[in-house]
Amino acid sequence: MSKEINIGIIGYKFMGKAHSSAFTQLPIYFGEDMKVNKKIICGRNEDKVKRAASQFGWEEYATDYRELIKRDDINVIDVTTPSNYHKQIVMEAIDAGKNVFCEKPLALNVQDAREMHEAAAKKGIKHQIGFNYRFVPAIRLAKQLIDEGRLGKVYHFRARYLQDWATSPDFPLTWRFDKKVCGSGSSGDLGAHVIDLAHFLVGDLKVVTGINETFIKQRPIIEGEGGLSAKAEKGAPLGEVLIDDATIFCGQFECGALASFEMTRYAAGNKNGMGFEINGDKGSVKFFFERMNELMYCDYTQDGLTQGFTRIQTTDYMHSYAKYYYPAGHVIGYADTFTCEMYEFIKAIKENDQAAPGFEAGVKAAQVIDAVDLSIANRAWVNVAEV
Amino acid sequence: MSKEINIGIIGYKFMGKAHSSAFTQLPIYFGEDMKVNKKIICGRNEDKVKRAASQFGWEEYATDYRELIKRDDINVIDVTTPSNYHKQIVMEAIDAGKNVFCEKPLALNVQDAREMHEAAAKKGIKHQIGFNYRFVPAIRLAKQLIDEGRLGKVYHFRARYLQDWATSPDFPLTWRFDKKVCGSGSSGDLGAHVIDLAHFLVGDLKVVTGINETFIKQRPIIEGEGGLSAKAEKGAPLGEVLIDDATIFCGQFECGALASFEMTRYAAGNKNGMGFEINGDKGSVKFFFERMNELMYCDYTQDGLTQGFTRIQTTDYMHSYAKYYYPAGHVIGYADTFTCEMYEFIKAIKENDQAAPGFEAGVKAAQVIDAVDLSIANRAWVNVAEV
Amino acid sequence: MSKEINIGIIGYKFMGKAHSSAFTQLPIYFGEDMKVNKKIICGRNEDKVKRAASQFGWEEYATDYRELIKRDDINVIDVTTPSNYHKQIVMEAIDAGKNVFCEKPLALNVQDAREMHEAAAKKGIKHQIGFNYRFVPAIRLAKQLIDEGRLGKVYHFRARYLQDWATSPDFPLTWRFDKKVCGSGSSGDLGAHVIDLAHFLVGDLKVVTGINETFIKQRPIIEGEGGLSAKAEKGAPLGEVLIDDATIFCGQFECGALASFEMTRYAAGNKNGMGFEINGDKGSVKFFFERMNELMYCDYTQDGLTQGFTRIQTTDYMHSYAKYYYPAGHVIGYADTFTCEMYEFIKAIKENDQAAPGFEAGVKAAQVIDAVDLSIANRAWVNVAEV
Amino acid sequence: MSKEINIGIIGYKFMGKAHSSAFTQLPIYFGEDMKVNKKIICGRNEDKVKRAASQFGWEEYATDYRELIKRDDINVIDVTTPSNYHKQIVMEAIDAGKNVFCEKPLALNVQDAREMHEAAAKKGIKHQIGFNYRFVPAIRLAKQLIDEGRLGKVYHFRARYLQDWATSPDFPLTWRFDKKVCGSGSSGDLGAHVIDLAHFLVGDLKVVTGINETFIKQRPIIEGEGGLSAKAEKGAPLGEVLIDDATIFCGQFECGALASFEMTRYAAGNKNGMGFEINGDKGSVKFFFERMNELMYCDYTQDGLTQGFTRIQTTDYMHSYAKYYYPAGHVIGYADTFTCEMYEFIKAIKENDQAAPGFEAGVKAAQVIDAVDLSIANRAWVNVAEV
Repeated sequence: MSKEINIGIIGYKFMGKAHSSAFTQLPIYFGEDMKVNKKIICGRNEDKVKRAASQFGWEEYATDYRELIKRDDINVIDVTTPSNYHKQIVMEAIDAGKNVFCEKPLALNVQDAREMHEAAAKKGIKHQIGFNYRFVPAIRLAKQLIDEGRLGKVYHFRARYLQDWATSPDFPLTWRFDKKVCGSGSSGDLGAHVIDLAHFLVGDLKVVTGINETFIKQRPIIEGEGGLSAKAEKGAPLGEVLIDDATIFCGQFECGALASFEMTRYAAGNKNGMGFEINGDKGSVKFFFERMNELMYCDYTQDGLTQGFTRIQTTDYMHSYAKYYYPAGHVIGYADTFTCEMYEFIKAIKENDQAAPGFEAGVKAAQVIDAVDLSIANRAWVNVAEV
Repeated sequence: MSKEINIGIIGYKFMGKAHSSAFTQLPIYFGEDMKVNKKIICGRNEDKVKRAASQFGWEEYATDYRELIKRDDINVIDVTTPSNYHKQIVMEAIDAGKNVFCEKPLALNVQDAREMHEAAAKKGIKHQIGFNYRFVPAIRLAKQLIDEGRLGKVYHFRARYLQDWATSPDFPLTWRFDKKVCGSGSSGDLGAHVIDLAHFLVGDLKVVTGINETFIKQRPIIEGEGGLSAKAEKGAPLGEVLIDDATIFCGQFECGALASFEMTRYAAGNKNGMGFEINGDKGSVKFFFERMNELMYCDYTQDGLTQGFTRIQTTDYMHSYAKYYYPAGHVIGYADTFTCEMYEFIKAIKENDQAAPGFEAGVKAAQVIDAVDLSIANRAWVNVAEV
Repeated sequence: MSKEINIGIIGYKFMGKAHSSAFTQLPIYFGEDMKVNKKIICGRNEDKVKRAASQFGWEEYATDYRELIKRDDINVIDVTTPSNYHKQIVMEAIDAGKNVFCEKPLALNVQDAREMHEAAAKKGIKHQIGFNYRFVPAIRLAKQLIDEGRLGKVYHFRARYLQDWATSPDFPLTWRFDKKVCGSGSSGDLGAHVIDLAHFLVGDLKVVTGINETFIKQRPIIEGEGGLSAKAEKGAPLGEVLIDDATIFCGQFECGALASFEMTRYAAGNKNGMGFEINGDKGSVKFFFERMNELMYCDYTQDGLTQGFTRIQTTDYMHSYAKYYYPAGHVIGYADTFTCEMYEFIKAIKENDQAAPGFEAGVKAAQVIDAVDLSIANRAWVNVAEV
Repeated sequence: MSKEINIGIIGYKFMGKAHSSAFTQLPIYFGEDMKVNKKIICGRNEDKVKRAASQFGWEEYATDYRELIKRDDINVIDVTTPSNYHKQIVMEAIDAGKNVFCEKPLALNVQDAREMHEAAAKKGIKHQIGFNYRFVPAIRLAKQLIDEGRLGKVYHFRARYLQDWATSPDFPLTWRFDKKVCGSGSSGDLGAHVIDLAHFLVGDLKVVTGINETFIKQRPIIEGEGGLSAKAEKGAPLGEVLIDDATIFCGQFECGALASFEMTRYAAGNKNGMGFEINGDKGSVKFFFERMNELMYCDYTQDGLTQGFTRIQTTDYMHSYAKYYYPAGHVIGYADTFTCEMYEFIKAIKENDQAAPGFEAGVKAAQVIDAVDLSIANRAWVNVAEV
């Protein structure tokens, strides 16, 4: 593993910060070989991107992403912009032969996502999509247990992603409510993560049927894009909310297991309440992100006398990535999921492997999201494969 | 409150035992006025019912339920037979002017349930259905908080009822898999309870869409009816399973809240995993039966600094029924839910009030179960009111 | 098992009610053979004891306990009076050749306790002390795991018993603060239970050193004895509190394990917070009474990949007493611990066995309590065997 | 805040890595102003320290710590060596007028610690000791609630620090069992942290009495120092363990509150089980490190109907440091406690303030540890102030 990795990143907000932190931590935790060069950061606002470059430790900055794409020394483009820019930037980066990391969702609909994946595959570049929850050690342990057959035949996958930041009607009409920017609301923003985990852990969905709602149909307009702690001015005019506030759907996997999903921004008291449970005929696992260093596992082949869910703290040396961090019991955090994610991406590039999850995972997530939307529009079941 | 209560009970198994225990405990916990006379117990097998009478403390026994119904001194008939006998017995008891307690489900379909409720209403007898979870103090606290407006406008109700006793294909074809006896599987047995709680806590469902599955389509045949710990002999012949093993559905309440339900007997590690969460714009509650003395409550109007879910142990004197039991922290159990249930029933009779939940609650639960079945058959949404 | 059991009970308050409930439930759960005759209940206030007899289902009542002791048909005396009457009543009952159940503490000091035990042993009657926590199925499972060697060599036992009802200085000077009635405060009332569990699960203590405090030294005087929800009148005169509010001690068992104990009535938010953890070289267990249907067990011989504390719900058929109750997951409550306790006592009498825990367990608990008191008085370690 | 911070660090193992990571993260999370220059890293093994410099991003390396101390451009010395070198290095650094960060414990006994603190105070340099748990947002919230009077008068502080890595007799005689290197075992390594938290949250201890044990008195000798996952060769010779494996003590604070502490490396299943509970007359808090993003808080002034322990997830913008990280619910990890710790240290230096906890906190922790040791030696209570 010797090739220099020179990164150009586009975007400097939530994910731009998380990725910058990850690139910085890579060698400290994963070893000297994992050093990367944080070459250039790009954003539209020169003042802000200049400061971001200094703060996050990038050598240079730019305001036009094409500058990054055309530079010969850059061999990785990292896309953390709003979702509606993903396709355009990614397609150009692929065209220039760059390896591309793209934040989720890959695109605003399955057609665009497919084009992006096909372009990447055709060009032969390395690509990865930002489904960072796949790199949570507890989730990787769930995957390992399933792959080892410790859950047996899977009967159930149930997932929920509960947040509460939109509960108040006073919360303003930020970019997350803007259909042009996001494509969808709860189903794309939150659903994409848990749908990807369903694919990662159980397999393909065959059929879905769901329902959704926009509970608060008008919200105060604000200046700028607004984050999760945005506040509108008193008496601000109201604008229409065009995306879904909450989405629930159920369905069946190709393997026969039943699925249930619920995503909402209106679950008071739940901050980042992503969780799932999988039941098989030999065992079960449960995960809850707010306690991300823990996997609950029931070995159903055990004698009933001592059977039950075991709280496994996934920080011991044999758990994924744990040996690179601290002794058992010294928990990791959300930011570390990006370090692990980028470790896999950079390692794959250095070893000339295609990383996982590649863009195909983004295509599949988009396909399910579109199928759910269609089932709601038609008030009927939809076969995912037909979307 | 002086009128003597003379009870005739039909059935001496799981629920027969639970009700017998409850009648015995009534005066000890709820006071001398709550004494009832355990007059007569009925069952088809004379040996067994004779022993049950002695063991459970009933004065007499009978093998024909009509003996109970025709006796003048009996003023309460308590029906704990298999579901397929409910209608016949209840209709005759109503006809004889007896007050009737009937275990859930009221009947095998909504039409039968409606007839039973109409007969009871017409005759003016007191009736109650065995939705015993309504009498869990933590659930009553949830109801109180909702009624006081502490949850505000409800956005979400999500419930699950997870058991695991059917996970193994070796588990035999007991009566719980018999469509003639039960009408349905997971949706009726488990779903009825959580659907009733949805009605109790949130209101009527408007529309549903769901999916179900029979994971294990053939099971070994056994002699007799078989309980939850039944075992088939090696090499026993296989019979068809005609009911649903697991049912998932989502939908919307008349009030606009979204609903999601999941019921299964294939969730390894979950013994009696009944639970729900309700999210409103002012607060949320969570309940999990296996920790039935606790309600989790988030007061979302609180400052974020100390906001979160509070584990309320519902054993303090101001919680439902707690003052009749022991000091705070001395938890009650499953059997006590029946004592509280019967307290409400007997008190209502003594005070000449109609108890809650009456048969109308059984009708509404049956209506939703039938609507879910129809939605699965049609692979489309179903309006509950149209069933 | 055929001999008739005819019980005379002395006391009708907290424990009188709990025992009455238990005797009533015995045959319902443990079978027809476990029927006992609730012959006579005794209390000093005739009106109250008369009502108690009717409410709790005792055939007769009396105001003088000697009436019970002298009756030939009574073969079991159950003592649930205030602690300061235990010795006198128990000694007379033994003298009359009755089998005796005595609530904890056996006596107000170790000398009295020893006399009681010696008298019982000499007379050859059956005796049991009311350490009801020994009959919690989860605690019995802990005992079973230890006996099977699944914890290996024990290194640590740590226990706490946290309540909060005395936190406010407005709470009145009830009998629980009266040294003459109780002998001690936190150490006797709460400590006795966890010290007994230490004896039951780990063995004898060798040495102790502790500290205690009376946080609120004067409290308002009330009429009568007062229970846990007593309230004094405004402006009531203050009386001295002569017992300990909280006691903490540590020490070492004969087997070499270290011990730590903490008992308090000043732990706001803890209602009946009795709990312990035991660590051995092959495994650990944790128990917390407020979740009394659960034992946490870590099998430390397991591979680290899936190691951790397993939440065992002790309601499956192979767990203690569970087969007599309901299917797995249908939890029991505090009152059921008395039913199980009395099951063991009555069964022992019927089978002419000495039950456990007999009075010797009360002697050993008293010895440790006295040793702790001495260590506090001397500000030095005390060897338990020397007390 | 403009002055350049040029750091020289001594040590590159567990803490060297944690601090390096922290210095790197500082500007990314806390802003451009928080940039520091990672000038030089020092270690005795040239190969290893050279690689550490490259991996952790230090400009230069050295094998003699005096090189760092004599350099004019270095204004901060960060000491992360084994404990027995702390005093020597820190004294020389102070003498050279450097600001000093020293990992815990400050020294091997209270006398040395006092000298170090006095030297620092006299010279007027800025000093901080590595009690990183003080920077856990949940613990800072506990402190804030206490300071605001929300717990009222404190009655109880109970703490435990449970690990399990020494449980097996096969675990070798690493440096952590070496009295010359560590001074003590469980009391210094684990106890120091929770004793400091007692000082931080409640105040000074007045009197202590305790007990300890060395469960495994001989262990296999290994080459080198060995970490927490060290393994001895089969048949390795055994060496004496001279430090304590587990320490338990109780006592009383100057304010009257009772204290209990337990530290062990023999609590199977507990990886980094540091936790405490504080009970006051107005409320209580509970903390458990393995769920470090959560504080349990009981507001005891609330009506009993909804009273209980609230699980506060301390990741919302108003919680300490949270606004510098990610949106609510996106948890932080162990490594982040060092970033927050260094933020306070560097900010204090930039603002010419003395940081907290300074060396005085290390002195006070050492004083209690010595008092506990003395109480065990004397089998009697010890007044902390007299040590």
